[in-house]
Amino acid sequence: MNISVLGCGRWGTFLAWYANRVHHTVTLWGRPGSKNLMTLTAEHKNEYLELPESVRLTDDLEEAVRSAEIILISISAQQLRSFLKTVSKLPGLKDKTFVLCMKGLEADTGKRLTQVFKEEMGAAAHVGVWLGPGHVQDFTRNIPNCMVVGSDEIGVTKKVVEAFNSDLIRFYYGQDLIGNEIGAATKNVMGIAAGMLDGAGYSSLKGALMARGTRELSRIVRAMGGNDITIYGLSHLGDYEATLFSPHSNNRRFGEDYVKGIPFHKLAEGVATVEALHHLSQEYEVELPICHALYEILFEHKETSKVLIDLFLRPVKFEF
Amino acid sequence: MNISVLGCGRWGTFLAWYANRVHHTVTLWGRPGSKNLMTLTAEHKNEYLELPESVRLTDDLEEAVRSAEIILISISAQQLRSFLKTVSKLPGLKDKTFVLCMKGLEADTGKRLTQVFKEEMGAAAHVGVWLGPGHVQDFTRNIPNCMVVGSDEIGVTKKVVEAFNSDLIRFYYGQDLIGNEIGAATKNVMGIAAGMLDGAGYSSLKGALMARGTRELSRIVRAMGGNDITIYGLSHLGDYEATLFSPHSNNRRFGEDYVKGIPFHKLAEGVATVEALHHLSQEYEVELPICHALYEILFEHKETSKVLIDLFLRPVKFEF
Repeated sequence: MNISVLGCGRWGTFLAWYANRVHHTVTLWGRPGSKNLMTLTAEHKNEYLELPESVRLTDDLEEAVRSAEIILISISAQQLRSFLKTVSKLPGLKDKTFVLCMKGLEADTGKRLTQVFKEEMGAAAHVGVWLGPGHVQDFTRNIPNCMVVGSDEIGVTKKVVEAFNSDLIRFYYGQDLIGNEIGAATKNVMGIAAGMLDGAGYSSLKGALMARGTRELSRIVRAMGGNDITIYGLSHLGDYEATLFSPHSNNRRFGEDYVKGIPFHKLAEGVATVEALHHLSQEYEVELPICHALYEILFEHKETSKVLIDLFLRPVKFEF
Repeated sequence: MNISVLGCGRWGTFLAWYANRVHHTVTLWGRPGSKNLMTLTAEHKNEYLELPESVRLTDDLEEAVRSAEIILISISAQQLRSFLKTVSKLPGLKDKTFVLCMKGLEADTGKRLTQVFKEEMGAAAHVGVWLGPGHVQDFTRNIPNCMVVGSDEIGVTKKVVEAFNSDLIRFYYGQDLIGNEIGAATKNVMGIAAGMLDGAGYSSLKGALMARGTRELSRIVRAMGGNDITIYGLSHLGDYEATLFSPHSNNRRFGEDYVKGIPFHKLAEGVATVEALHHLSQEYEVELPICHALYEILFEHKETSKVLIDLFLRPVKFEF
């Protein structure tokens, strides 16, 4: 099958590598002038993997979209809407299947990425998500993992799983698009919180963070019409190893550096999600104490250690 | 209040230290000849903490029980029944409150520890459990955590929380004794599985382990009459940081050493729990794929890596 991957960052490049590995004909697109694309064109590798010569590299978006049956998108979540405004003007989109391989929420609206997609591409466009745990470094060393694919259309879910399932990535069929999208986005928020606990010397509170954090997120998922058990699945809890415990996690590292006063060059994706959750908490009238604490720290500049400790030492009460 | 702690291992000694810190009059009991007790008597400290002189040490069980209003028990789970056969013959037990501060299930019956307690001490005896995350090393450095107290009698729960709540341990009222006991015991099983993944070089599968493991355990809790959400609370998921990710976790270490073929001197508590779960899985007719895989490895000596990988690469299916 012809597959195109839009976005040639770490994950997008991995997706191209993986699609090739499961015997598809692959095009990897990066925007004109992209430094990642230039490196890949020159060396056919990046710091994580080597791309086979058969993966075609291009900066021609129209051609990348036209030539593919399934199009995987892996760009920054906050750039999705403007990117799709360009994509939506391209010809011949009708029968294409798009898969969003990204984790985030639109910061200033709290919208899920498939909502943004449908608003820009039209309600009839076919879209799914591909989420869950997995380090590029592990996959390229042949260490398998489980991931989840979801969509409002079961046909899309099945098509994507059938195209990409292998002994390296075992897919589960997602049954709750709302829960999976919120779960995938918010694991980055829990990653920042975990990093802050690490940085403040309170790593042992990461257990309580997991138990209390999943609890409040499952409430917002239910309020939004999702299933309150989904947060405990692969897209959220299943990604905690990579996000809350790995020294490589960008979001965890961001939280740790923030507490330690180490300057950071790039905001973690979870920061935008904290802002999005602030909107969702108000819109759906659901209390999110941990997410709110992060909002106070990151957007209202309250003292991190005090906010974190107050959070975990709230008055005694029933657990659920 | 007069508090006695029965058992002077690492956790029992911590409980005595903590009860003293929250201003109780504390007796710490160890069995006659106990090496831990001898060290404590000679030095009033162990490798983790220093006991204040005001904590009285004794090997007189009758006196330790008689003098206390609340009695905390922290011994090996598999010795609880025979220990209680002795305790139950002591005079004046009627108004005492016992708290089981231990995590396990009876290996050859699958019974919960409060079930064992009631069978030996009588149905009218007052008993609660004190469970959840927390490292001794952190508490003694003044790093707080959240824990959970539960009982079939709300009066017991409230009494114990009131007696022990502080700015170091913030308690939640447990609402599901079955779920909390199963959760606390089985987190050791997940710890062994995590250690095996670490030892086999598959640490990144610990995310999938968390998502899939909690799922199967919540099914057995529900089948036993508990609430299927409890597994995601402090007693189980909340203890994952300490159990699945800490290099100090006995159960995780056991799993890692097992895979690497490093001889181990003492079976981890989770091994007995794997046996107990084997009984429960049959009794309640609930499939527990991860627990069963550990049973095959530990009791039927199947090849660890193959069993683990087969487990995570089972055929594609719906997640919940």
